Formats: sequence, C-alpha cells, structure tokens
Amino acid sequence: MQAEIITIGDEILIGQIVDTNSAFISRQLNKIGVSVYQITSVQDDKQHILQALQEAEGNADIIIVTGGLGPTKDDITKKTIAEYFNDTLIQDQAVLTNIENIWKKYVKQTLAQVNIDQALMPSKASVLMNYYGSAPGMWIEKGNKTFISLPGVPFEMEALIQNEVLPKLKEKYKFPFILHKTLLTYGIGESKLAAKIEAWEDNLPEYIKLAYLPNLGKVRLRLSAKGQDKNKIEHEIKRQIELLLPQIKEEFVGFEDQDISLQAIIGEKLTQLNKTLATAESCTGGKIAEQLTAISGASAYYKGSIVSYATHAKVNVLKVPQRIIDKYSVVSAEVAESMAKNVLDIFQTDYAIATTGNAGPTKGDSDTDVGTVYIAIASKDKVFSEKFSFGNHRTKVVNKAVNKAFEMLQKEIFKN
Amino acid sequence: MQAEIITIGDEILIGQIVDTNSAFISRQLNKIGVSVYQITSVQDDKQHILQALQEAEGNADIIIVTGGLGPTKDDITKKTIAEYFNDTLIQDQAVLTNIENIWKKYVKQTLAQVNIDQALMPSKASVLMNYYGSAPGMWIEKGNKTFISLPGVPFEMEALIQNEVLPKLKEKYKFPFILHKTLLTYGIGESKLAAKIEAWEDNLPEYIKLAYLPNLGKVRLRLSAKGQDKNKIEHEIKRQIELLLPQIKEEFVGFEDQDISLQAIIGEKLTQLNKTLATAESCTGGKIAEQLTAISGASAYYKGSIVSYATHAKVNVLKVPQRIIDKYSVVSAEVAESMAKNVLDIFQTDYAIATTGNAGPTKGDSDTDVGTVYIAIASKDKVFSEKFSFGNHRTKVVNKAVNKAFEMLQKEIFKN
Repeated sequence: MQAEIITIGDEILIGQIVDTNSAFISRQLNKIGVSVYQITSVQDDKQHILQALQEAEGNADIIIVTGGLGPTKDDITKKTIAEYFNDTLIQDQAVLTNIENIWKKYVKQTLAQVNIDQALMPSKASVLMNYYGSAPGMWIEKGNKTFISLPGVPFEMEALIQNEVLPKLKEKYKFPFILHKTLLTYGIGESKLAAKIEAWEDNLPEYIKLAYLPNLGKVRLRLSAKGQDKNKIEHEIKRQIELLLPQIKEEFVGFEDQDISLQAIIGEKLTQLNKTLATAESCTGGKIAEQLTAISGASAYYKGSIVSYATHAKVNVLKVPQRIIDKYSVVSAEVAESMAKNVLDIFQTDYAIATTGNAGPTKGDSDTDVGTVYIAIASKDKVFSEKFSFGNHRTKVVNKAVNKAFEMLQKEIFKN
Repeated sequence: MQAEIITIGDEILIGQIVDTNSAFISRQLNKIGVSVYQITSVQDDKQHILQALQEAEGNADIIIVTGGLGPTKDDITKKTIAEYFNDTLIQDQAVLTNIENIWKKYVKQTLAQVNIDQALMPSKASVLMNYYGSAPGMWIEKGNKTFISLPGVPFEMEALIQNEVLPKLKEKYKFPFILHKTLLTYGIGESKLAAKIEAWEDNLPEYIKLAYLPNLGKVRLRLSAKGQDKNKIEHEIKRQIELLLPQIKEEFVGFEDQDISLQAIIGEKLTQLNKTLATAESCTGGKIAEQLTAISGASAYYKGSIVSYATHAKVNVLKVPQRIIDKYSVVSAEVAESMAKNVLDIFQTDYAIATTGNAGPTKGDSDTDVGTVYIAIASKDKVFSEKFSFGNHRTKVVNKAVNKAFEMLQKEIFKN
C-alpha cells in the first residue's frame, strides 16, 4: 500500500515557504502502515497538476494533494481536480453553512462571493468538513484508488488528516504494520558509529532497515520494519535493540519517538525527579527556552530564562561581576559559570544551563573567535562548563550550542 | 530554463525530517533567473532514483539532487548516478586529500575505509569540492543538460550551491530575469484583501503573477515577473506597486524580501532611530527573543529578554507586584503592562514587548481560557496592551502571538 503526496503552490517552488505539510502527512500515514512512495511539489499550473495526478495514479493507491484551495484567483486546484475526473462543480449546502458559521463566529463580516464559491465541490467528491477554515477537503474514489485534496494551511490540513482522512482510510483499506524505532546518540560521528556497529548491522534481518541521520553533533539511528505480523516485528526490533545497546553505551542518550525529542526526555526526567530548571542565554538568544517551552506541560519544571544578549545585561540583570568579565572576557568559562549559578539563584531552581559565545558572523562584544561557545551547567552544589568551537556558520553555531547544552544537561540529570 | 530538484532519503518520506534544502535551492535558483519546475522527494531506492532522474531529464534543463552521499550503507545516490550514466567510480586524489585534511583538522582520528571510499567519483563527473564534509558534490553534463549531486547536510549543500553551483551555472547558461516582490500586510483576511484590490489585480499585465500567502494574521502579497527585459520588468513591478499601495494603506507594513522578515524591518528601523528593545515573555517562551536574535547584528538594538515561564518568576525576577497578579490574574492586561514596563527598566531600553497568556492545551497557572494572550508594548513614556483569542492549538497560539507582537511594535516604532 503506497501513497503519494502532491503539494501545490508557486510559493514552494520559489522557496518562499518550506513545505512542512508533507512531513506531517508522511508521519501520520506511516503510523497507520502506509508508506509514502514519493512527494512531489508542483506550481499552481493546470497542466502540471494534471500531469502530477496522472503520474501519482500510476505509482500509488492513495494520492493526497494539499494547497491551492484558497478563495483567490491563483488557487486552481479544485477546478483542476474536477477536470481530471471529468466532473463539474456544484454548491454544497453543508459546506456553505459551515463557512457561514465561521464567518459569524470569527470573521464578523458579510460573506464575499469568493467565499461563497468555496462551497462549490466536484459532484463526485465527498466533503471532508474543515471546521477551521473556508476551504473544504475532498475525498474522491476511483476504483480502489483514493484521491484526497486538503487545504494547504497547516493547522487546517492537520485537523482534517487526524479527524477525517486517517479514520476513513483505516475503514477502507487493510494496512500492514510499520514500526520505526529511533535511537538518539551524541558525541560520535556517523562513520565511526557505523564502524563500531558494523557486525550488528550486517546481521539485521532483511525486513529491517537501518538509517543514520547525522545532525550537528547528534546521530539518530533509525530502525524500520514493515510486515503483516505485528508481534514478530515488535519482537525482532526489541531483540535487535537489546543486541545494539551494549555496543553504544557511551553514546546512547534515549529513544526518540517521532514526536519525542531530547528536550522531552529531559522534561520527563525532571518531572520524575521533581526538579526544576532555568536558563541564561547569550549566544543562543532564547532558543533553548523556546525549545523547552514548545513542550506542553513544561511549566511543571521549567521556570524561565534570562536572555542577556547585551554585555551590560549580564552585569545588571544576571549579576555577573564586572571584574570577571574584565578579567576573562565576556565569552569565557568564568562568565558562563557565573551566569549559570546566578540564574539558578534568581529563579530558585535545581538546575541551570548558561551559554555565552560568539555566533558570528562578526565578533560582537567580544574578541573571541567566531564559533567559540562556553556552556555551563549548574546544580545546587556544583557548576561546570565546557568550551566548544562550532565553526563559522551563525545558525549552525546556535543549533549546535542548543543541542550540546541539552546533551550536557541530560548527562548530568541522568546521574540521578 | 527550468530546474528540477530531487531530494533523496527515507527520512523525508517517513516524515522524520522536513526537507528544507529544496526551499533554499529554489530561492537561490530563482535569484539567478532559473524557475524550479518540480521538487521530487524519493526514497533511498535505486530503481526509484533512476526513474526520478529519467523523468527530471524529460522536464528540466538543470537537475539538482541532494542526499544519499554519506559514508554508510543506506547511502546509494553515488553508485546509482554512476549507473544512470553507464559510468564507473574511480578514486579522486583531490577529494581524498580534502577528506584527509578535514580528518586531521576536526575529526582527529584515523580515516576509516568508508570515508576513503567517499573519494570515489563517477569518471564523467567534475568534482564540486566540499570543504565542510567528506561527501563531494558532483557536476555531470549530458548535452545541454546539467546534473548536479550535492550532500544532504544543509550547511554543506548551501556552501556548495553558493560557491560552486551558482557561479558555474551562470557561466554555462544565459538566464532570463526573474523578479519577485513581496508586500507584507497585517490585520485583514485573504478574501477581504482580494476583494479590496480586485480591480487592480484584474489589470495586471499577463507576465506578472500575483499570489496571496496567508499565515496566522498576516497575508503576504507576492508579485512575480519573468522575462528577458530587466528594465521593463523592474519598471512595471514598481509601477504596479505604486498603484497598489494607496489601496492597502492600513494593512501594509513593509516589503519582505525573500530573506527579510518583519523582525528585520523592525531591526533596521531601531538601528536607524538608535533605539533599543527588550522583551518579557511568558506564553511565547523565548520565541520572540529567538526570532530577534536570529538576525545577525541584533545586538546593536536588542538587549535581551526575561522569559518568566513560572508565575513566581514574574514576581521575583520581573518584579510584577503580587497584588496585581492576585487582583487581575496572571493572564491580564495589568500583568502584561507591568511586565513590559519592568523589563524596559531592567534592561534600560527604549522599547519593550511583553506577552502573557495561555497557549494550552491545559490551563496552566491561570484560569483564563486557552488561547487568551495579552501583549503589551512599552516605551519610555507610555505602555499599552491588547487582548487576543488565538484559538486552541498550542503552536498556533504561540506563533500568532509572536507575529502580533512584532506587528504591534512595528506600528509603534514607525510612528517615529
């Protein structure tokens, strides 16, 4: 059972937006046992959309199209789909009522003709009702193949996938079982890791695939298996992981479900220990805070951050002694450790992370080399720091520092 | 002149990573006058890669492939490309030397055989030297068509595009001129905006396309034109914008170059006014700080943030009076305004933004409805706030609040 995803919109092809819809849809389809064969992004162009639909029909059983359903003139997906199925558009009363309700509740203006026209549907389509916006989803069957068209706005598309598409697919088809299990490792490169576990990898059964996903200081190892026998797959994946773990004792930090990150692993551990965390960020500029608070329920253990972007903020707000800055420079182990200790005191937490460094491209308030970052971890009774050289690419320096900070904290709290 | 981008990797098709490479490459190609016809993501599967190459060769003049060049067994792009061109792999001495240098400088370990093998290249390919990693890029010509294969690691790919691919493409082909101009509007929905400017839109010349890009409270209007006559295109786009601007006086906040965001517009204005900014974030959890500091040079005007995620941090760190919290609740106009005023004092800035709200899914430290957010803006002599209801989707609430905060600040500072 294969699916193909077609995302429509000039904004994707000129690089104005990143297509995040495909990743979301792929993840959801995988969970119910559908493999995605291909993702294709095409322009708002009738001939090209028709061609993409034709090719997808040849490759896949389930074709999911997103985008191009808005009320404006550049949105041509709906009439192109009608043409593909030799169909005409007719007004759907339930869709119109839904649009009227949304307008009454949120927009509070009279309905324009372009929005009334959004209730036009191909006569062969079943409606997937979109309660978050005016563009309805569509479900069209052709023999055993299913075509699904969804709005491109991510949260509208996501709600339709969860509430309409997945339940209907599970009703229509019988899917194989797919299992992915991802192990998160830190501190060793891809090829060294591969050499270390080569014998194990070579002995994996045919139906289990291994992938290496390196990213700025961490390597994720993903095991994937697919088949009809759920018990056999679960058992074999479990057995293989038990064989692997002793070989990567030093590097392994946890399992990463597709929705579980290192921040979540840290959050769970802190909750379990009943401990709290604060952060003091300079070069990471709030990104550690942002990633921690992206997790629902973070307020149970995460108390807050002081982003001391300017040097004087380190003195005035974080109370780093001016003499330490003068003596060691603002990018130094001493400043990082002082930031960590002080923010722990200020927020009265059990742990604290601090970062100070130079993300580049210019040297900023310090003379330190671009890419130099000090990360400190404080707990009630100790503080320590490490120095890193993260290269000369600004975004990369920040992301590496964020990853490394989580790695250091994870190691520290998992000693408990 | 058309290009096609093929991104290779199971991790894309199972939704484990979002393909950001395609957007970057598309943006860069557009700048030099190359349109991207299609983006195709396929699995690490030989037959499928061969088929994608075949189809791309039919559609496009320039075919750019990323991914699958790593040292591990799941990386099969290079040998598949060799097969596509009936070619064999031979060791390239310059590539091997480059890999040895990287190992000496950064990895500081002996070179494994899998990394030595990364110096194998199809004999028909020119090397695109990758100074940031061990996987070289490849450039293969077939008649007037060009095939380019690049590593999937974003910063390695980006450096190769900038330093190797774009200069070589400009040398080989003569490209048409492409111009995109994007206007950023806030505070009006897509269909209402479309109705307002309908007559103008209908009179656009054939070679100028208009697109609406709505996203959580903002709508971007993108004008795109392509042709050989650079002067004519620039002149006509300018003329059309002059006709449009008086019609969207209220909603227009600035031009958004493909790399310029509202944060950058704010940053430029603050720099020009010689004014500074601090932030106090509760429900946005550091995301405002993170977006401000993503801009190189932000330290000139952005001094820092206090992320007061826990209520007691609002009292202890931000000095919000406990009686205000008791009287009005932690999610209130009074608390938002107090946070803004206090953070302005603490960081000694000219402006401050504060957010307090409930991003959900649970109610947190407050009884306020999920989605309620107060945003306050303070300057030396005044403070004001607004209340918003941003729905019940956590990520969406945070992103809407961040966008709205920048919108409010932009309006305030552009009064100067």
